[in-house]
Amino acid sequence: MEKMVETIEWIEDDAGGHVVMIDQRVLPHQQVFVECRTYEEVADAIQTMVIRGAPAIGVAAAMGVALGVQQGADFDTVCKTLAATRPTAVNLFWGIERMRRLMAGLQGRSSEEILREMIAEAKQVRVEDIALCRAIGTHGAPLVPDGKTVLTHCNAGALATAGYGTALGVIRAAVEAGKKIDVFADETRPFLQGARLTAWELQQDGIPTTLITDNMAGHFLRSGRIGCVVVGADRIAANGDVANKIGTYSVAVLAKENDVPFYVAAPVSTFDLTLESGDQIPIEQRPATEVTHVFGVPVAPENIAVQNPAFDVTPARYVTAIICEHGVARAPYQESLAALASKTSRATV
Amino acid sequence: MEKMVETIEWIEDDAGGHVVMIDQRVLPHQQVFVECRTYEEVADAIQTMVIRGAPAIGVAAAMGVALGVQQGADFDTVCKTLAATRPTAVNLFWGIERMRRLMAGLQGRSSEEILREMIAEAKQVRVEDIALCRAIGTHGAPLVPDGKTVLTHCNAGALATAGYGTALGVIRAAVEAGKKIDVFADETRPFLQGARLTAWELQQDGIPTTLITDNMAGHFLRSGRIGCVVVGADRIAANGDVANKIGTYSVAVLAKENDVPFYVAAPVSTFDLTLESGDQIPIEQRPATEVTHVFGVPVAPENIAVQNPAFDVTPARYVTAIICEHGVARAPYQESLAALASKTSRATV
Repeated sequence: MEKMVETIEWIEDDAGGHVVMIDQRVLPHQQVFVECRTYEEVADAIQTMVIRGAPAIGVAAAMGVALGVQQGADFDTVCKTLAATRPTAVNLFWGIERMRRLMAGLQGRSSEEILREMIAEAKQVRVEDIALCRAIGTHGAPLVPDGKTVLTHCNAGALATAGYGTALGVIRAAVEAGKKIDVFADETRPFLQGARLTAWELQQDGIPTTLITDNMAGHFLRSGRIGCVVVGADRIAANGDVANKIGTYSVAVLAKENDVPFYVAAPVSTFDLTLESGDQIPIEQRPATEVTHVFGVPVAPENIAVQNPAFDVTPARYVTAIICEHGVARAPYQESLAALASKTSRATV
Repeated sequence: MEKMVETIEWIEDDAGGHVVMIDQRVLPHQQVFVECRTYEEVADAIQTMVIRGAPAIGVAAAMGVALGVQQGADFDTVCKTLAATRPTAVNLFWGIERMRRLMAGLQGRSSEEILREMIAEAKQVRVEDIALCRAIGTHGAPLVPDGKTVLTHCNAGALATAGYGTALGVIRAAVEAGKKIDVFADETRPFLQGARLTAWELQQDGIPTTLITDNMAGHFLRSGRIGCVVVGADRIAANGDVANKIGTYSVAVLAKENDVPFYVAAPVSTFDLTLESGDQIPIEQRPATEVTHVFGVPVAPENIAVQNPAFDVTPARYVTAIICEHGVARAPYQESLAALASKTSRATV
């Protein structure tokens, strides 16, 4: 159960270091690595989805800030450029804010010392992310019904994080605990994270996985074979509303309609307790070509209008539980999420 | 509002006639016509989805039987071969049965006369189908809320019928009646009938149409902009359960959850009142490559397991009304469907 490729790494070099990411746009048929030597290149990689997945974006943002410091670029410009790449996943802003707080504490130090600290912090964000995913797996595994199928949407796996995954971390931990489960992976149009990334990741791990199109999820939820749904999240509001990959809301409604538990697995860095509800979460619109073309092949008439919201919001009433590194939150989320989030604060102080 | 290509036609020739279909596998980027001179070629065209859509398949089946008679093939073999192509759409069996009944009534006639009658009947099935779609449109148009968006799934349009369409017939009739509506078309993976066929058909007609991926339907149903959903059907059981393209069930549940009316538009030939409920409708499994490849381009890892049910069943409780050529059926469907179906019987006796 080792992952085959690293999602993102900081590589030391003569200039200090650079960032290497696996290009998630061309997986699984091509394994191409993208090297970023500037914060602008990291920003571009986030925006064009070379790297995607809320926790992975958080790591990339932290490393991007470190690169900006290494370049000697204006710190505010670095932070603003990275923050402008994608609007929905709050981990992006969390990663930048963490670096900004450190920077504020380093005032008066030498530039060498500042750079050393910033790089160390960015690497630490990555290491912590893997540990958080393991903890999410530990808390989530007991919730997975034995002998049934787990349905997941998009990719909340090793590739969406620094490693191990959130939703797929729960699945991996359930398998490691000896549960006999298999997985149904929604292909997740338009970017096909399920078909290209989740199916591939789980196949590497030898976890029995069946690929379905997104519109089949309801049919199988109705069939009785799905024991639970586990997905990741891009931002979770204080009331437990969850922004996640487009289609998540549909799966959640269909799960509830068929009495199948619907679990969200995400680190506390995905919580945005400043937002009362999911209605306040900005939803990114992606380019139309993601819908009209598949790997460059046109699948629709020319000049057709397209909507391409990359995320949707699942109201908390459809969410059975939210699994984070500190435990499992259930309704009322206003209280349970705040309690779990405060555990972090204490641990990191 | 004329359709640009004919879905299927009987062309007279020296041998008697042959069938021409537009190849729906390569639309809209290629307009290729397939000529069938034998019933085996028609069977192959149905099975490989050169032609698809329940009413269109019914027409193709009738024409296939006529070709078989023209070939002088064994009549039972002709009917059985055509009946074995696809299991779900009952219109296929209805078309064959209609030809079989005619054949039974022609016993003792000359082979020339029999062939002439069979060809005339097959052509009549096609002509009637267009008229049925117009009538469905007339009954359905008043149900479409003015000034809102209509959501449809798959293609229940001119290409799914001999012309005009069932679900798209309702939309066309609403537009002809002066309603200011626009359409959201689910792309409908894996075969992409929505992206390739519905978007193209409506674009030709100048009806404002927006393409979305299947997993976006819930998001937009929740948004309040969708005034109603209209879809076609492949088989409707006596209790009102509806088999239709995979994903229809999900749309129906999401419509109900958001208080959006969900309409099914289909001719009486789609009713199968011999079945008590939708649980008895056979669901076709299509090849895995439809899911793993898009126009030949692989979108998933090799050797991944796939499920590819081509249809699902929407329980009657999610169906606001069923629109057929004789009127609008509402719950309890056991009575309303039987009443509308008996109107046909009287009309055709």
